[in-house]
Amino acid sequence: MKKITFTLLITIIASFTINASETKKLPKNVIMVVGDGMGPAYTTAYRYFKDDPNTPNIESTIFDDILLGRASTYPAPVSGLVTDSAASGTALATGHKTYNKAIGVDVDGKPLQSVLEYAKSIGKSTGLVVTSQINHATPASYTAHAASRKMYDEIANQYFDSKINNQHKVDVMMGGGVKYFKREDRNLIEEFKASGYQVIDDYKQLSQINNDKVLGLFADVGLPWALDEQPHRLKNMAMAAIDRLDNNNNGFFMLIEGSQIDWGGHANDIASAMAELDDLAVTIKWLRNYVDKNPDTLVIITADHSTGGFTIGANGDYAWHPEFIRHLKSSPEEIAKKQIKNSFDPQVISNELGFTLTDSEIATLNTAFTSSKELLDKKPLYNAIKKVIDIRTNTGWTTGGHTAVDVPVFAFGSNKHEFVGQIDNTDIAKKIFKLLGK
Amino acid sequence: MKKITFTLLITIIASFTINASETKKLPKNVIMVVGDGMGPAYTTAYRYFKDDPNTPNIESTIFDDILLGRASTYPAPVSGLVTDSAASGTALATGHKTYNKAIGVDVDGKPLQSVLEYAKSIGKSTGLVVTSQINHATPASYTAHAASRKMYDEIANQYFDSKINNQHKVDVMMGGGVKYFKREDRNLIEEFKASGYQVIDDYKQLSQINNDKVLGLFADVGLPWALDEQPHRLKNMAMAAIDRLDNNNNGFFMLIEGSQIDWGGHANDIASAMAELDDLAVTIKWLRNYVDKNPDTLVIITADHSTGGFTIGANGDYAWHPEFIRHLKSSPEEIAKKQIKNSFDPQVISNELGFTLTDSEIATLNTAFTSSKELLDKKPLYNAIKKVIDIRTNTGWTTGGHTAVDVPVFAFGSNKHEFVGQIDNTDIAKKIFKLLGK
Repeated sequence: MKKITFTLLITIIASFTINASETKKLPKNVIMVVGDGMGPAYTTAYRYFKDDPNTPNIESTIFDDILLGRASTYPAPVSGLVTDSAASGTALATGHKTYNKAIGVDVDGKPLQSVLEYAKSIGKSTGLVVTSQINHATPASYTAHAASRKMYDEIANQYFDSKINNQHKVDVMMGGGVKYFKREDRNLIEEFKASGYQVIDDYKQLSQINNDKVLGLFADVGLPWALDEQPHRLKNMAMAAIDRLDNNNNGFFMLIEGSQIDWGGHANDIASAMAELDDLAVTIKWLRNYVDKNPDTLVIITADHSTGGFTIGANGDYAWHPEFIRHLKSSPEEIAKKQIKNSFDPQVISNELGFTLTDSEIATLNTAFTSSKELLDKKPLYNAIKKVIDIRTNTGWTTGGHTAVDVPVFAFGSNKHEFVGQIDNTDIAKKIFKLLGK
Repeated sequence: MKKITFTLLITIIASFTINASETKKLPKNVIMVVGDGMGPAYTTAYRYFKDDPNTPNIESTIFDDILLGRASTYPAPVSGLVTDSAASGTALATGHKTYNKAIGVDVDGKPLQSVLEYAKSIGKSTGLVVTSQINHATPASYTAHAASRKMYDEIANQYFDSKINNQHKVDVMMGGGVKYFKREDRNLIEEFKASGYQVIDDYKQLSQINNDKVLGLFADVGLPWALDEQPHRLKNMAMAAIDRLDNNNNGFFMLIEGSQIDWGGHANDIASAMAELDDLAVTIKWLRNYVDKNPDTLVIITADHSTGGFTIGANGDYAWHPEFIRHLKSSPEEIAKKQIKNSFDPQVISNELGFTLTDSEIATLNTAFTSSKELLDKKPLYNAIKKVIDIRTNTGWTTGGHTAVDVPVFAFGSNKHEFVGQIDNTDIAKKIFKLLGK
């Protein structure tokens, strides 16, 4: 009996010590993932969008597996209660509330250190992988300091000019934005090349990276909609980026953003928004496998705000029909663009949407097509296609802007329990600073 | 050194044992709280509604302190993806998905045992405290079995006729519903009296209860809006009910419902919805103090679904202005009702709303007043008042029905950690069954 007790004691002490040290051990790598505009209705709807109609149950998603809490998103009082992506990006990146439009500066315009900047200062590698232009509000909040998010050129300049420990702040940058980096007044792409960066502009080159400093710009501004691109563009960029960032024994910090969930929300385009969310979800699934093999990595996922006032159901009808957005061959915007180059062909539209249009729907789209032709503008037809989809799916929207609903918080890997329960968006940066050892 | 180690070992063993037994100990009392219709936008908006404008920070709410996760709410496949309060009530009460309108029965109409019924069967006391009629969908799901929620009389009959261990299922019932209990064909109130229940019909009597069996019916159907009643009606009922339920050494199970948050949502009446949510929040605060003194009690709080497609911000404007719903003296419905009994008086409306109407708002309300007078119907004026409030606050709505967004889950007290992360509404009943020892 005494022997057993003694062995038990040793076991308890050992497990106790291991637990204590596990809790205290800081993550080597921190990956911050932002689903721009990904409010609670989006991650809920995604479950139904991805449901396999051939099974009686509703399958859970990657988001269901990793939910830990939710975060408030309100900006500094001067901007009221509804944030933009700049103020919320700055909150997530620096831990400070600021005014809408502010990039990495406080309400007085004073620069605020971001978690990416701090990570770089302590010798970690840094990365940005986004589907917007890489100098858009969210990534800029981690890397630059500007009075307004609209100062795209100035922000792009800072990516090159502003240094930490005599190095550019971000080792691996991928997304869109050629327009801002190759300008009449300055060619930052050539400057990065001269400064030792491998520059790529085609997804095929993602497998040919042989340098730990990379600038990958795959579009003039934001990337095309996920629906109009090769599958898994965000995952492919993230995998290639992590492959290089991982070479630093000190670890890395990176931001991954599914930037265009928000753009789908602004456009009130549920088909594009769900496809963007899928692009992000596939990336998160891959990250989960990565963390299984690299348990010293922490992944935190949240949204900066919700967009569009999207609701799953509308107009008094207790229904939502994702089956009408599961089979699109192109984005509604691209369908409209292609149509107005030719004569009206409802069969082509049906084929691209993945469901058969009714006569009434065809009549509506025909009227819109005529307007688009007259105005030389895709908008009337694009709007009409979205309206058909909204009615088919019974989707609701209240705004072309943002709303203030709290956003979900997900995490996995090292120290994930820091993110359980209700927190504020600024707490996410504060916790990351702490976990980076600040 | 050896002595210190030995003491340490004993301490570790002791704390280890205590922790293990704490985790395994089942709660004596379980209090299920439902905020009907209380989707994520509601608990978020409540933070801003309650914010003290005289402080620079935004104060956190009781909900922020106790959030643990969120729950999916979809009904059985036959009813699609958007639940009604009957299917979700049945899911929360029994752990089974069913069709919309079903009360405590499965898709084949077979009765399902509820957690309340199980609690009664093992000798616990049971209670229902709601602000709707006590035979409304949510409370009925815990107590009755019916093919349709609309079978109000049949459901009321079951409250008396259907017994467990030769006792009525619910020891303490409080809310509205005289109409269904005192009918031409049957007077259940007299039957309950004859069966030993103390019957009360005035809040003043809440302090005069001297019986552990209580039927308190304070309105013909649902209770009046919280805005039109004495403050804290739900808390006062809950306190009086728990005072009696607590007399059972075997513990109790009870349902508390803030029923009319949902009604505010259906009416797209944000002022009434926030006041109902406040009535619930005050109750939850009191429950938290109760659990501090009775740590063997578990409180779980969730919503059955979200209502109205309510969004915090709308129409492209990045703003929400709760200051216009903080000072109402009556509900918008009551303001309309009172107005149409007299001649149009915008000063009275301004006074009741708590803000000064503009000339344009007065003109709109005057037109609606005329319609109401002509139609002998409060609706045109009620709708116009709500519209003024929506524009002032910049509130968005997409439906008079429900939406499918996941709802927040909160818990405190014994075994609260069971409710962390993403769960389904059926998991809540399953976990409660387990915690009741089934």
